[in-house]
Parts: sequence; C-alpha cells; structure tokens
Amino acid sequence: MRIVQKFGGSSVADAARIQRVAGIIAETRRAGHQVVAVLSAQGDTTDELIEKARDLNPAPSPRELDALLCVGEQISVALMAMALEAMGQPTVSLTGWQIGLRTDSRHGAARIRSIDGARLLQELEAGKIVLVCGFQGIDEAGDQTTLGRGGSDTSAVAIAAALGADKCQIYTDVEGVYTADPRHVPGARKLAAVSYDEMLELASLGNQVLHNRSVELAKRYGVDLEVRSSFVRAPGTVVKEELTPMERMIISGVAKDADIARFTVRGLPDRPGAALRLFALLSGADINVDLILQSVGTEGRSDVSFTLRRDDAVKARALLDANAAALGYRALAVDADVAKVSIVGAGLMDAPGMAVRMFEALAEAGLNIQMIASSEIKLSVLLRRAEADAAVQAIHRRFFGDGE
Amino acid sequence: MRIVQKFGGSSVADAARIQRVAGIIAETRRAGHQVVAVLSAQGDTTDELIEKARDLNPAPSPRELDALLCVGEQISVALMAMALEAMGQPTVSLTGWQIGLRTDSRHGAARIRSIDGARLLQELEAGKIVLVCGFQGIDEAGDQTTLGRGGSDTSAVAIAAALGADKCQIYTDVEGVYTADPRHVPGARKLAAVSYDEMLELASLGNQVLHNRSVELAKRYGVDLEVRSSFVRAPGTVVKEELTPMERMIISGVAKDADIARFTVRGLPDRPGAALRLFALLSGADINVDLILQSVGTEGRSDVSFTLRRDDAVKARALLDANAAALGYRALAVDADVAKVSIVGAGLMDAPGMAVRMFEALAEAGLNIQMIASSEIKLSVLLRRAEADAAVQAIHRRFFGDGE
Repeated sequence: MRIVQKFGGSSVADAARIQRVAGIIAETRRAGHQVVAVLSAQGDTTDELIEKARDLNPAPSPRELDALLCVGEQISVALMAMALEAMGQPTVSLTGWQIGLRTDSRHGAARIRSIDGARLLQELEAGKIVLVCGFQGIDEAGDQTTLGRGGSDTSAVAIAAALGADKCQIYTDVEGVYTADPRHVPGARKLAAVSYDEMLELASLGNQVLHNRSVELAKRYGVDLEVRSSFVRAPGTVVKEELTPMERMIISGVAKDADIARFTVRGLPDRPGAALRLFALLSGADINVDLILQSVGTEGRSDVSFTLRRDDAVKARALLDANAAALGYRALAVDADVAKVSIVGAGLMDAPGMAVRMFEALAEAGLNIQMIASSEIKLSVLLRRAEADAAVQAIHRRFFGDGE
Repeated sequence: MRIVQKFGGSSVADAARIQRVAGIIAETRRAGHQVVAVLSAQGDTTDELIEKARDLNPAPSPRELDALLCVGEQISVALMAMALEAMGQPTVSLTGWQIGLRTDSRHGAARIRSIDGARLLQELEAGKIVLVCGFQGIDEAGDQTTLGRGGSDTSAVAIAAALGADKCQIYTDVEGVYTADPRHVPGARKLAAVSYDEMLELASLGNQVLHNRSVELAKRYGVDLEVRSSFVRAPGTVVKEELTPMERMIISGVAKDADIARFTVRGLPDRPGAALRLFALLSGADINVDLILQSVGTEGRSDVSFTLRRDDAVKARALLDANAAALGYRALAVDADVAKVSIVGAGLMDAPGMAVRMFEALAEAGLNIQMIASSEIKLSVLLRRAEADAAVQAIHRRFFGDGE
C-alpha cells in the first residue's frame, strides 16, 4: 500500500517523541508499504518564531511572516530524517517548494492549487521514506506561503490525493473522533468510523481533531482518512464517504462551540431585502453568519438575531455601526455569553424523534434554549455559555448512556 | 550605486543587533543606492541545530544536515526584513533557491556554479531592499546545499559578481584588515587597502577576517571588497587588484598560523622521484603540504621535513605508515608544537632587505628559526609554537614601530 501519515507538533516536540514517531514510520515501511510522512513544526517553534518577529515589528508583512514560519517544518523533517537514518531506513526530507506544492498568494491562509508529484514518486520508487513539510507551499511568484490553521492536515490529504494513496493517517494526541469531548463528558465513546459530512459538522462545531478544510479536501478526492494516536497503539477513527450499516450510528457526536457571539439587530425595516442587505454586508467582509432567527415584524419593523465567530465580533460591530443609517435599524446588541451545542448524525433527518430526545434532555436539566437551527445532519441550539457543558453532558447521556 | 553588504552571525545575533544592522542597510538605501544584504545565521543558531541533530543521530547524512542548517539564514533574513519594514523600507527576503544560486552536490562544502540574477534584479528595479540567505544554494537535483566555512562571504562576492555590483562590503566584528592581530600585537594598524594577492596570503596564514574562497572569487571577477565593522562607523579596508602608490605598503601584515604540524620523514632513499612519490601520495588524499625542507643526502638517504594542517595530521600519519614499505623511509616523526609566522607584502621581492630585517628581529628576540619558505609576496618561518606570539610582536615592531 501507499500510505500518507501526518504527525502534529506535539508528536514531534522533542527528541524522544521524534524517536517514537520514527518508530511508527519505520514499522509501516518495514511492513512493505510506501510511506510519505507529513510533519508539523515542533511544539513551540512557531510561537517562538512569532515572538522573535514581534520584537522587531508588531505587524510584520504576511509574506515575511510566512518566510519565517516555514522554517519550523523544515527543522522537523530534517531531524526526523536523521532519526530514521539512524534506524537504517533510507529517507529523504522535502520542503513545500521541493514537492511543488503550489498555492495562491494569500499568505497565512493560502489555498492549495496543485501538487507536482514527480519528485515524491521518484523518491518512493527509489525505496525511500519521504518526509514532507506540512503547512507550506509556494505561490506563482516563487514565494513561500503557509496554509493557516489545520494546514498540515490539509497538506497530508492533498498529497494523498495527488499520489492516489491508499490511506491518509492523521496521528495526533487523541485516539480518534469521540461522541463528545472525552475530557469533559463522562462516557464519551470513540467512533470506529464517521462519514465525511458528519466529520465536517463535528469539525465546524468545535471538534478540533481535524480541520474542516482537510475533511472537505478528503471528501472531494475520496481520500480515506484515519485519525489515530501517536502515543497509544490502537485503531483510531476512519473518516470516509460511505459507512457500512454496522458502522453507522444515528447520532455520531455531541459538540460544543463556545467561540461565538450573538448579534441582535433591533428595529430593522420590515421590507423585502432588508435582512438580505445586512447579511450581504457581512459576507462581503468575509464574516460568516451561522444561526439566524428573525422575529415576526410589528409596526413595520422586525428584529434579527444571528451568531458569528467571536474573532469576527469587533469587525462586524464596526461594520454595522458604520452602515447603521443605510440599513435603517434602531439598535444593536452583542452578547458573547453564549455557546452552541449540537448533535450530528447522518441518520438525523430520518429519525425525527431525535430532536425531541435532545430537547427533553435539555428541559430535564433545566437548561434554556435561546435559538435553534438544523441542517440535514445537524441540530444545534444556542444556550448561555455557562450552561454549555451541562447541556453536552445531558444530551450525551440521553443518547449514549453513562459510560461503560 | 549597486552595493552588496554582508553581515555575519554576530552582527545579527539578537533583536538589538538586527535593529542596528537594519539601520546601516536603510541608511545605504536612503543615500540612493540599490542594496542587496547577505546575512548569516544568528549567533548560536547553527550550533543549536547541530546539537538537536546529534541527539538523534551522531552522524547525520550531509544532505539532511544541510537541509537543517539552511533554516538558520532563513530566520535571519525574514527577521531583518521585518525590522526594515518597521522602518518603512520596502524589503524582500530571498533564500538560496529563490535567487537560483546553483552549486555542485558536495553537501557541507558546496561550490557555487551559477547565480540566476533575474529575481534579484527584478526586486532591485522595483525599489526594494533585497535580503539574501548567505551560505546556501541548491544543487541540480533541487536539494539544499551549504557552502561550508566562509560561505556567506562567498555568497556575497558571487552575488556582487553576478549583479555587476559596484562594491561588496563585508561587515564583521573587526574594523578591517590589520597589519597583525590587534588583540595580541600592540601597535597593529588597520590597512586602508590591500591587494587580492596579499589578502589571500594573509587569509591562508591565519587572518580570519575573510575566507580564501571569497577573496579568490573577488579576484577572479574583479569585485571590490571592503571589510568594515558592524559596530563602529568608520572606513574599513578595501581589497582590490591594484593599489594606488599611496595605498601600497612594502609589508601589509604579519600573520601567525598555529594550526599546523611538522612531519619529518627520515632515511628516504636518495633517488629521483622518492620525495615526489611521497608528496603525490599526500596530495592524492587531499592533504596540502606547505613548507618543505629536504636535507642533503648522506649514504644514499635523505631526510624530508614538511608542514601540513593539524586537522590532517592523523590521516597523513596513517597514510605514510601504511605506505612505509613502498616509500622505503626509515622513521617518521610528527611535531605539533610548531607555528608559522609570515610577513606578506606585494613589494617583498623588490625589497630584498625585508628578509634580513625579519631575521634580525627574530635573532634579537632570541627566537630560533626551524624552517624558511618564501613566495613572491610572502616570507614564512617555522618556530616553536610557544615563541610564535613573541615572534609576531618582534617582527611587527621592526616593520611598523610600537604604535601611537
């Protein structure tokens, strides 16, 4: 088989961890597989580099920041190559530009355009383990770019797609995808498998195991993903298009997202297109709106509530303030004391009883629902932030029981 | 003018020093010049990276070691770019591969083959300060290489040649080239100018300001070099082909080289070609022999003494031992307790009195000469190592007086 493995920053943080990961890679190679391993920067390297940069310039240009940050993964792959060489494994390390990973020029959040697989294939055919810098590429001008959050996962999936790899294993510090955050929810269970669509919802709802972009890319190119632990030798969670009936669960997880804020725009003129203009304005500024609740109008005016990422709140508020006259609303309230709790499951819409069970669980726990939204495979509610963990636990208990 | 400036590792060791160097670069740019600045890795970065490597592999492959070490200069140029941006100076940082600096594949000691000046020129024409990673390039396979000792100086001179720059300034932690090491010789004077050939001799004789390779390259392409201080604003020493009569001195410096060993091969058969075979053997193993003294033969045998670099002594001894029978000598003695002291000057051969003055100075100081050798612009003597500093001082006093 041809296998792409990805190891995150905590998996390569020091010499001992590099040795451990080298052991995993070498074992895969000795089993007769071709291996490409994609690595992130070691533990705190990126933070240290950013601190060095800030000492010189509080707002460095994105191009130079990318040029600086690209060294993090270069250090990881070269060190890992040395560890594998010491184990007698022929190995070669390659940077983003060396594998011809082309991106657009959005420094710090670049999108992959193409990967020239020639060098990768040549080294694999020569029998070598190939180590690749995650998170980085080059643009048309030949400048180094970074892919932003979740970038190394995205690199790994893109490389797996370009090479037609049989699987792409994402090694991380958790053992897989769980029905809820195991640190906070007693009885949270590891899923054997989950569909791309469910994983997308779980990821966007605050499950940090895989970034959305990498799951989207895997779905588009049909790359079989597996999330598994760098530290515990055990099967992880497989992410793929079609689950077998055995693997399929009605609900695959309960997730919490506390990094949101609720905006309430009061007294918006109740005429066609008023809300549309509001949302077009936000969307034009790259601000994504999630849950939306529009009240029935009275006296020719209505209220609109919506949620957005907390990081975008200051920008969104400034934008709405600046356009208050044009939009014609009367008041704007921002509430950051909220959280979204969601259930995700491919079978959700086929089993209408699920919503009832969720609401019952919340009611019995005495928790108030502020807003509700649903999609084909997701049902979300907005609550006070302080109540979010209790809500996740109550819902999880209702669907999955109390543990062993 | 188009100026290439090079700053070494100690000149960019921390944020404060980077700011200082950024000031020098910005000042040159504001004076209306085009500036390319070539940087080394910060202070201890290279040593830290090597230590990380050794923790994983006591003998990493040269290819991966180069891949690792290349990040040092990338950090320097990106940080310097940020410092210059903060001063409002449009700047771009470029790696070895981005400027198309092609080398052979001798990792760790690669030789420059060519530089594609296109990107460099494009950025200069766009009005930007261009920062370039010294010490590094790529080979034909697209792998990163490093140039070895003095590599950043060599990069700077090669870039100056490729761009037809008007001058190449080497900024360092000394103020220029001195008539002797100012730390040990009272009255050592800074030279206003020195010829390429004299600089080559001074460099190979232990003056560490400029590496031989960079001076050779400057001579070949007629690049005017200037050695000056990153810390003191003062004119340095210009290195060029032809000095003006004002600049020319009969003796340009006194140098000491203590990193040598003397070999004495006793009882070599006194027949044609015997010494030649000995030296061919050493030369075939890349061991350079410097001073040579052959005694007059007696009873069909003669003794040969010669010096070589101390680093090569173990290898040379093993080689001669292994070939003792074929060479037919009777005994081999190695003496590492020696040093070479030399005077260098373009006018040396035209002023035969110089040798006399040198020997007088040594005799008056009670120092014994073991061997003598001369070239067109150099006169060297071998002494006991403990006497070398006294010899340099005595000779320097004789030629340059006692200082202010």
